[in-house]
Amino acid sequence: MASIKPSTPKGTRDFSPTEMVRRNFIFDTIKSVFRKYGYQQIETPAMENSSTLIGKYGDEGDKLIFKILDSGEFFEKTEAIKTLVERLPELIDITIDQRERLKKADSIIDTASDELKSQMNEVKQDQIKVEQQLFSFIKESLTSKKLVSQISEKALRYDLTVPFARYVVMHQNEITFPFKRFQVQPVWRADRPQRGRYREFYQCDADVVGSPSLLNEAEFIMIYDEALSKLGLKDFTIKINNRKILSGIAEVIGKADNIIDLTVAIDKLDKIGLDGVIKELLEKGFSAEDIEKLKPVILLEGSNSIKLESLRDALKDSATGLKGCDEIETVFTYIDSCKLQNATLELDITLARGLNYYTGAIFEVKTNEVAMGSIGGGGRYDDLTGMFGLKDLTGVGISFGADRIYDVMDELNLFPADTNQTTKVLICCFDSDGEKYALPLLHSLRQHNINAELYPAGAKIKKQMEYANNKHIPYTILIGSDEMQSGLLAFKDMESGLQEKLDAKEILERLK
Amino acid sequence: MASIKPSTPKGTRDFSPTEMVRRNFIFDTIKSVFRKYGYQQIETPAMENSSTLIGKYGDEGDKLIFKILDSGEFFEKTEAIKTLVERLPELIDITIDQRERLKKADSIIDTASDELKSQMNEVKQDQIKVEQQLFSFIKESLTSKKLVSQISEKALRYDLTVPFARYVVMHQNEITFPFKRFQVQPVWRADRPQRGRYREFYQCDADVVGSPSLLNEAEFIMIYDEALSKLGLKDFTIKINNRKILSGIAEVIGKADNIIDLTVAIDKLDKIGLDGVIKELLEKGFSAEDIEKLKPVILLEGSNSIKLESLRDALKDSATGLKGCDEIETVFTYIDSCKLQNATLELDITLARGLNYYTGAIFEVKTNEVAMGSIGGGGRYDDLTGMFGLKDLTGVGISFGADRIYDVMDELNLFPADTNQTTKVLICCFDSDGEKYALPLLHSLRQHNINAELYPAGAKIKKQMEYANNKHIPYTILIGSDEMQSGLLAFKDMESGLQEKLDAKEILERLK
Repeated sequence: MASIKPSTPKGTRDFSPTEMVRRNFIFDTIKSVFRKYGYQQIETPAMENSSTLIGKYGDEGDKLIFKILDSGEFFEKTEAIKTLVERLPELIDITIDQRERLKKADSIIDTASDELKSQMNEVKQDQIKVEQQLFSFIKESLTSKKLVSQISEKALRYDLTVPFARYVVMHQNEITFPFKRFQVQPVWRADRPQRGRYREFYQCDADVVGSPSLLNEAEFIMIYDEALSKLGLKDFTIKINNRKILSGIAEVIGKADNIIDLTVAIDKLDKIGLDGVIKELLEKGFSAEDIEKLKPVILLEGSNSIKLESLRDALKDSATGLKGCDEIETVFTYIDSCKLQNATLELDITLARGLNYYTGAIFEVKTNEVAMGSIGGGGRYDDLTGMFGLKDLTGVGISFGADRIYDVMDELNLFPADTNQTTKVLICCFDSDGEKYALPLLHSLRQHNINAELYPAGAKIKKQMEYANNKHIPYTILIGSDEMQSGLLAFKDMESGLQEKLDAKEILERLK
Repeated sequence: MASIKPSTPKGTRDFSPTEMVRRNFIFDTIKSVFRKYGYQQIETPAMENSSTLIGKYGDEGDKLIFKILDSGEFFEKTEAIKTLVERLPELIDITIDQRERLKKADSIIDTASDELKSQMNEVKQDQIKVEQQLFSFIKESLTSKKLVSQISEKALRYDLTVPFARYVVMHQNEITFPFKRFQVQPVWRADRPQRGRYREFYQCDADVVGSPSLLNEAEFIMIYDEALSKLGLKDFTIKINNRKILSGIAEVIGKADNIIDLTVAIDKLDKIGLDGVIKELLEKGFSAEDIEKLKPVILLEGSNSIKLESLRDALKDSATGLKGCDEIETVFTYIDSCKLQNATLELDITLARGLNYYTGAIFEVKTNEVAMGSIGGGGRYDDLTGMFGLKDLTGVGISFGADRIYDVMDELNLFPADTNQTTKVLICCFDSDGEKYALPLLHSLRQHNINAELYPAGAKIKKQMEYANNKHIPYTILIGSDEMQSGLLAFKDMESGLQEKLDAKEILERLK
């Protein structure tokens, strides 16, 4: 076998032991909070039928879905290859036949009248066209676009939401609604890899379907607060908005049909400032008068209740808008009775992410300690499962951005010190006698649930100490001939360098 | 969007909440034992470069690897399409030219001498051959086999061993050897799905590379014993063999070159009995005399030490064979000093699984409580990373068959009762007043790490109770107007049906 320099595919990553402990710390923390709030875990397969995924993420999304090649003779079974390979001789016969007619036409043309000449030329052009059509037929049936659905019937999941919708519809008779599920699995996107954007990454989602109650929205805010606080984040903002408020705003300025243009523009307030937003709105056909009406809404300031009051005033002519305000207020009331730990809850009417499918609440979470995009988001969607034929099932969900949370925690040094210690004690010995002596101690440490290792006999002590250091093992036990005779073993604290002579029982007590 | 009846791809599965809790119970137990023995977790990407995987599992394995289609215009960039689509008119011209020559040849043949006729016929045959070659060239370049490597450069991992070897070589400068790693991730195989065989399934592997010590082999036996005992298995056998013993046996009967035939045959002793094995050996060219020599070895009985003694006698002329006996004995000695909990350790020289790459110890685990194939296996391989250019790194590893362990535990009813309880208490109320009253209690339960839910106001109590029953929630708290006035809430044990009036503090004490 030829030796090749190994690598991982572009945009994918290996996770080393230390990274794994830290990632597990993040996932385990979030999962434990999901469970505390009554969410249950499910898993779906990495691959879905293409028909489940294609068409759910727009044209751009479809291009980013990784397709899996059918097994076996995938190509021989396509229409294109059947036409081409099996019928090629026939196609060539047709072409030859065409050419002969052309030649015949040419010979007639030489001797014909002008009128006949012109008619024959038309025939000639027609026949050239036929030949060209034949070639283009072949060319066009042999494109990636035409072939992909014929040679690939499965694809890797692109997110957790569509597979979840598929799950709910498939298992609707086993599920008790409201169904509160969480799911932590990788997804794959054929995106151009760049800093912080990967082709394989974990999503970490919780959704409840079948309950219109705004208690769910409030609980998601509490889940964000509790999980991120547990991870050590001290200062972060949970932004909330409501699609109905956005609809109301568009309505009161008489631009209900332009809601997308409107929200796309004001969503950029953070980045391009008020002048930028105004410029974009003007370009999109909003009048100066519209913009005057919008300004106070876009620039809404003060506490959440002051903002709500101003909004109610501005939206007094829109039933939808007022309903949005009511919904937000109800969520705030729920939250009032359960003090948030470290989160600031902020009504932000410029928040519009994923407007296409959100129909009620919209969430986004940002840390205020580090410059970083959103570390979470979500919202309510009224017809998630409709695409699979199960109508009128409302849902609301959130997602944690695990990779970004990892980077934030790394930058703020929030990982507990012991996340790089996986083994607590290493027993070192000089020879096979020491090894034999050590085995019962090793066994007893493990029986007390202490992660322990015995370095196999035969290596120099220096090498064994390096092993302990590289693996961040905090304690070592050295067993030489003196130690075996006296039963007092050299117990070393690797950080302080302090070494004591202790018997097995004392060591066990220290490590328990 | 058209409504389609959703399904998962053939051979793949969704995991429901109860299945997830049970699967997590299995994985968490095994992982905790791996960690206790100093193994560290890594993860590798689901997709690997095809060059990393193809050729590592034999021709049959290669066929079972799921290939991922390249993105974009995957087909237009292939050699076949370039030749075909771009050069088709030219190819047709050549064909036409050939045919015209044929026609000319025909016309000459009519008037030619016999000698000339025969020469012309040869020319004709040659030209027919040329045309056929042209079509076969097109046909042969447009096969799945030829195309696959041109339209797919990535594939889904087929096992965890090859990606681990790739990881070790790629990260060799960061790794401290001996490197003890575990990995629990799904793998994908385009196998024909059947009962108990899936196209996506989890593997659960631990390996150590860079240590020839037989202590590792002994520790893997302890890991099997501890993990499976923790899962509740009471009676299982860890079979051990050594490739060197098998080589020794082949050597002493003078059939060193036929070791594969020999081991494949005796590996079937369980299934086809001694007569079947003898029949197969005769077919493979072993003589009656060979078989007489083999019989006592195949039929080895008694305790492990008696078996070893007989083996040493039978293998006294093979240095390799005796080395195998020494190795097994060393492993047994290590095990002697740490009593196994529920495992029976058995020397079984008919065990030959994966002989192709195992070079020392070979393991297999079977439960004696249920009829089921092996629930674990592994062995030592001397050159795992050689395929990626890192020579002479010895490794030994084991794997747990999680799906089969699940089935065994299910059949033996070994899952703890609480594996289907994910929420501990459900608070039920009649209206939004009750909901408001309930919120602080809900919050306080969660602050005490009790998994608790509040059913959103508005549903009938019957529906709320059904929810609790379906979700296996063991306790409910009912809050009506009486309860709110008195502060004494109806606390119900859902299993016994017993209901008590308790205040919030008492309820908390009960649930803690």
